[in-house]
Amino acid sequence: MVNPETPYETPLKSKISVFRQKTTSYFSDVVMFLGGSLVAFLLLWSLWCFTAPLSSSSSSNFSSPSQPTETRPDPTTFYDDPELSYTLQTQVQNWDEKRKQWLSRNPEFTGQNRVVMVTGSKPGPCKNPVGDLYLLRFFKNKVDYCRIHGYDIFYNNVLLDPKMFTFWAKYPVIKAAMLAHPEAEWIWWVDSDAAITDMDFTLPLEKYKAHNLVIHGWPKLVFEKKSWTGLNAGVFLIRNCQWSMDLIEKWASFGPLSPDYEKWGAIMKSVFTDKLYPESDDQTGIAYLMVKEGQKWKDKIYLEDEYYFEGYWVEIVDNLDNITAYYSKVEAKERKLRRKHAEKAGEDYRAQWEYSMEKEGVKLMKRPFITHFTGCEPCSGKHNEMYSWESCLKGMNKALNFADNQVLRNFGYFRPDLDKSSWVQPLPT
Amino acid sequence: MVNPETPYETPLKSKISVFRQKTTSYFSDVVMFLGGSLVAFLLLWSLWCFTAPLSSSSSSNFSSPSQPTETRPDPTTFYDDPELSYTLQTQVQNWDEKRKQWLSRNPEFTGQNRVVMVTGSKPGPCKNPVGDLYLLRFFKNKVDYCRIHGYDIFYNNVLLDPKMFTFWAKYPVIKAAMLAHPEAEWIWWVDSDAAITDMDFTLPLEKYKAHNLVIHGWPKLVFEKKSWTGLNAGVFLIRNCQWSMDLIEKWASFGPLSPDYEKWGAIMKSVFTDKLYPESDDQTGIAYLMVKEGQKWKDKIYLEDEYYFEGYWVEIVDNLDNITAYYSKVEAKERKLRRKHAEKAGEDYRAQWEYSMEKEGVKLMKRPFITHFTGCEPCSGKHNEMYSWESCLKGMNKALNFADNQVLRNFGYFRPDLDKSSWVQPLPT
Repeated sequence: MVNPETPYETPLKSKISVFRQKTTSYFSDVVMFLGGSLVAFLLLWSLWCFTAPLSSSSSSNFSSPSQPTETRPDPTTFYDDPELSYTLQTQVQNWDEKRKQWLSRNPEFTGQNRVVMVTGSKPGPCKNPVGDLYLLRFFKNKVDYCRIHGYDIFYNNVLLDPKMFTFWAKYPVIKAAMLAHPEAEWIWWVDSDAAITDMDFTLPLEKYKAHNLVIHGWPKLVFEKKSWTGLNAGVFLIRNCQWSMDLIEKWASFGPLSPDYEKWGAIMKSVFTDKLYPESDDQTGIAYLMVKEGQKWKDKIYLEDEYYFEGYWVEIVDNLDNITAYYSKVEAKERKLRRKHAEKAGEDYRAQWEYSMEKEGVKLMKRPFITHFTGCEPCSGKHNEMYSWESCLKGMNKALNFADNQVLRNFGYFRPDLDKSSWVQPLPT
Repeated sequence: MVNPETPYETPLKSKISVFRQKTTSYFSDVVMFLGGSLVAFLLLWSLWCFTAPLSSSSSSNFSSPSQPTETRPDPTTFYDDPELSYTLQTQVQNWDEKRKQWLSRNPEFTGQNRVVMVTGSKPGPCKNPVGDLYLLRFFKNKVDYCRIHGYDIFYNNVLLDPKMFTFWAKYPVIKAAMLAHPEAEWIWWVDSDAAITDMDFTLPLEKYKAHNLVIHGWPKLVFEKKSWTGLNAGVFLIRNCQWSMDLIEKWASFGPLSPDYEKWGAIMKSVFTDKLYPESDDQTGIAYLMVKEGQKWKDKIYLEDEYYFEGYWVEIVDNLDNITAYYSKVEAKERKLRRKHAEKAGEDYRAQWEYSMEKEGVKLMKRPFITHFTGCEPCSGKHNEMYSWESCLKGMNKALNFADNQVLRNFGYFRPDLDKSSWVQPLPT
């Protein structure tokens, strides 16, 4: 069951128990235009006399301060708009133009499909005694992936808007990350209980160039079967653009900030008949938008089902030992794959693995990209009754070790047994 | 007291209780030259036919594999030496030449003072119930700093060499990181219980250009007073070069891998008379090398005492509320400092802060760069009896919130009260 006190967990394929607090409504007051902000912006612009400094290194010498000198044109941007707010309660408009202007003033960030991964958990300790250790291990796993692929990662551990609890908590964070990272083309939300289990796999961003939101899902299940489990909202890529600002506003309007929050639960349940509980949730929310609110949303959402953009752990973990053995077999055949290499220069090596695995053609033996422990609730410990806690724990441990073996390898070590976290050996020379 | 089961903690200014296991000696067998490796290397080189691939993105399509095509010259480097081992037991020689050759073949990484931060903790759960939560928070703090400054970060949570326990555990990790990251000029070890408390401060690497190791310390205390607390080995910058390979070998030779481990404790105690316990430790080890083993080491080690390269929490945490108030006062005077900005483009903003604080000239009110909770042992809970656990907990909480407020600000929020982790508010517009 979903523990309502644990932000960020994906809603489960089972009944939600109870919500922490009733909705209060100020979301309707929220959707307002920044009246007068243009005038203020222009006024500020004319007053602005920002002098950009030369040095990037800080000085610890307090005796002779020197005024930072000008090195680049006046960097005045949307940040100088005094009305700019990062909260969900205030709309951002003309974001595409604002971002474009910012990029033109910071040209070192243009021309790349930059990705910022965003994840997080609640501020306090987990109720489950090993919960925090697992949050740490899941976070390390993501940091490793991001280091290898040159992505940034932001871990949020506060509830930015107290009304947006549980799985609704991510939306204020995502909006803030979009504004704080105008250089990022994509914000990649990944639930705290999801592990990257193919460290070599690179997001096929080119494939998504006509889309603004990528979620794991199956069109048939969403559009024909009207199943709320036809997609999973625990992992998604969202493009940093006005469409996404609008989507987040719309999406969050199904949540507890909205005066219609309670009503939405019943409406969603009437459309998605396999939804067991009557509360509005973000996963059904996005499915509802696709099914009911026309082209604007649907056409820009890519439901990814060709690989494990987000995979259900129950389908995955029992196969990880076999996959390890299979990769060892492929590696034994191909000397290039046994080559040591610098972590930063692994692109050739990764491509070689992709090539070798494609040549083998055994899709089931390919490492799953992301293994999501939906229903395990490692922090709250209130796992779905469909699974035993032991199976969750064994699965998380195995998946994290499976992933970490790919990282450790670059540092000259490996774990001979995926069930034994602390037993490592040097790679054979 | 130091808990011997917690790797990576800095030894304390108090007596070590007991070590987990007795030394066994195979370090003497270890220092051996890679005999015949040159022949093997040349043979391998002639056999090598690495074909570098074009694509950086992975394909999920298994139907039509295409052989990665050549895009760069044969990348054969030291990694192709079959004798290359990442363990402490095997010497690396001619590392400067090998790194230089690697960089010449991977020119996209040259010409920058790249930094990889390395930190970590042990694999299992902390004995202290909130320990893992604090490890997670300390890690998030470091990830935030590294994201802001464009550094990589690697968190190690396995004991790579079971004999190198407690504070000795970092040396195999650092050596492995040097080999795995030839693009990094500096490896920056930061203990798990140290927090970056000035997110804007940039390492003054230019200042260290003639040195290979930077540690917080005071020359007078080390060289004249022969005090083992004249420096702190919990945070250090080490240059990725042959000198450092030699140093690590030498440094680690005081540890439990060495047949002389027990002997070294007594020798160190005889030189550093304020050392209370008779076991060899890494902190006294580096002080010993500086005092007793001549120019090779001493001249290349920079003892930093101009800023809190590593600050003792007891001196710091009670002042954090005052510092916050002081920064607010400075900010109120200078509109540029109140300006919102993109996290990635904070260089100008950071320089402006440095300038404004230098102008104020009140050094005590400058944010301390690193606050190290030496003696708090958040994971084991076996804190030094000099402090109460409550003071440690309050201090860690305050320092982490103080740091995180600087990060949150870029995302549009802040904590009004440093003691209340979960209470955040949107920045005023």
